Amino acid sequence: MHEIQINVRVRYPECDPMGVAHHSVFPIWMELARTDLLRQTGMTYRECEAAGVYFVVTKMSVSFKAPAHYDDELTIIAKVTQVSRVRIDHGYEIKRGDDLLATAETTLACVGADGRVRAIPDSIGGR
Amino acid sequence: MHEIQINVRVRYPECDPMGVAHHSVFPIWMELARTDLLRQTGMTYRECEAAGVYFVVTKMSVSFKAPAHYDDELTIIAKVTQVSRVRIDHGYEIKRGDDLLATAETTLACVGADGRVRAIPDSIGGR
Amino acid sequence: MHEIQINVRVRYPECDPMGVAHHSVFPIWMELARTDLLRQTGMTYRECEAAGVYFVVTKMSVSFKAPAHYDDELTIIAKVTQVSRVRIDHGYEIKRGDDLLATAETTLACVGADGRVRAIPDSIGGR
Amino acid sequence: MHEIQINVRVRYPECDPMGVAHHSVFPIWMELARTDLLRQTGMTYRECEAAGVYFVVTKMSVSFKAPAHYDDELTIIAKVTQVSRVRIDHGYEIKRGDDLLATAETTLACVGADGRVRAIPDSIGGR
Repeated sequence: MHEIQINVRVRYPECDPMGVAHHSVFPIWMELARTDLLRQTGMTYRECEAAGVYFVVTKMSVSFKAPAHYDDELTIIAKVTQVSRVRIDHGYEIKRGDDLLATAETTLACVGADGRVRAIPDSIGGR
Repeated sequence: MHEIQINVRVRYPECDPMGVAHHSVFPIWMELARTDLLRQTGMTYRECEAAGVYFVVTKMSVSFKAPAHYDDELTIIAKVTQVSRVRIDHGYEIKRGDDLLATAETTLACVGADGRVRAIPDSIGGR
Repeated sequence: MHEIQINVRVRYPECDPMGVAHHSVFPIWMELARTDLLRQTGMTYRECEAAGVYFVVTKMSVSFKAPAHYDDELTIIAKVTQVSRVRIDHGYEIKRGDDLLATAETTLACVGADGRVRAIPDSIGGR
Repeated sequence: MHEIQINVRVRYPECDPMGVAHHSVFPIWMELARTDLLRQTGMTYRECEAAGVYFVVTKMSVSFKAPAHYDDELTIIAKVTQVSRVRIDHGYEIKRGDDLLATAETTLACVGADGRVRAIPDSIGGR
């Protein structure tokens, strides 16, 4: 299964008055890793959209273990955990060095320009 | 169990190139409902923090059923589903009129200024 | 000239580790007031876009006088200060009660679906 | 005068229904460049805050010339344009390759933990 690892540095406005990254930012980092994983297949998400292939998040869950602070350099690990004809599941780890800050899962559905579910193209890992 | 219903209008920068609210915005709306629910107990989250009582999200999961579009007026329903000595679980429904757009759950842990788990004060629903 | 006044409550993730609303959030509140001002003319920005009329910000400047804190209820005052065939200027005041927290100005250009500058339709205040 | 150049890739949720980066995101990118410029002096903004030295934006203005699209790789150029005892002015260029997308200016004031204006420490370029 495909896997990727990207680095992000925690931005100041991503942090809240507790001085830590707000929980709503983790899905944004996860999406960054996920789109870079797609890029590895030779296609960018921008090209997908231009071709009328969209992915929408239908489920996400995040489990937070420790906070990320401003200016921390984090590693986001994303991998494909399951692929069906119309859906892709990903699993994630958000780490700072060896410390695991969060784990997460998402399910994406492939939709066309009309918003209706469609088969994932073979070229980007569909089957 | 406590329950609340708030209205939010989808903001332009909350929407992405698909023209719909990005999935990372739903946790922000859920938090708005949750803090208004706390306000009903007679205490604002601002007062909690001033008193050295913080709540951190340790788990969240969202299930998306239909997209929210720019300028939609949404209803966010939040209710307490379980309370332990140090944790509060909430359940959420995000609706546009009668249409259910998403359901969600979160778990919050009560922590002190030192970041360590502590008992939820009686005054705000602890037991 | 048209003028409007809206209320916004400062959201938790809009605040940074200093405990105050990050400066990048003010343009978002200004846009909320501006689109409500447009709504007064009987047209929503969503309807504008559906009709192939878009407004893009070509200039903005904000002068910050005092911070806005989490949970503050603010008043955003927006008014049209100048209209040309293709541009609209707005002026803003961001207040908490009688305290003036910021003043701002923006210039919007009217563009078509092709991104090229076009005349503002009469129906929404063009001349 | 100090100058820096950083690269940022436009994130999906930074883009709005027009498919371009929302104007409120530019100040966030400018801040990223500005804090990296500070890092060059041998001090991070995190260290500044830990030492009770804060910088608040008192003025910002941005002039937008062309849109930034999703997944664009941008260059943010930031330089110090003026320093007084308590204030620092920066100038910015936001570019995609050779195309200039925006120019901007900010004024920061140095404040202490009490929020009152104070002299910029010598160690980070004060005079």
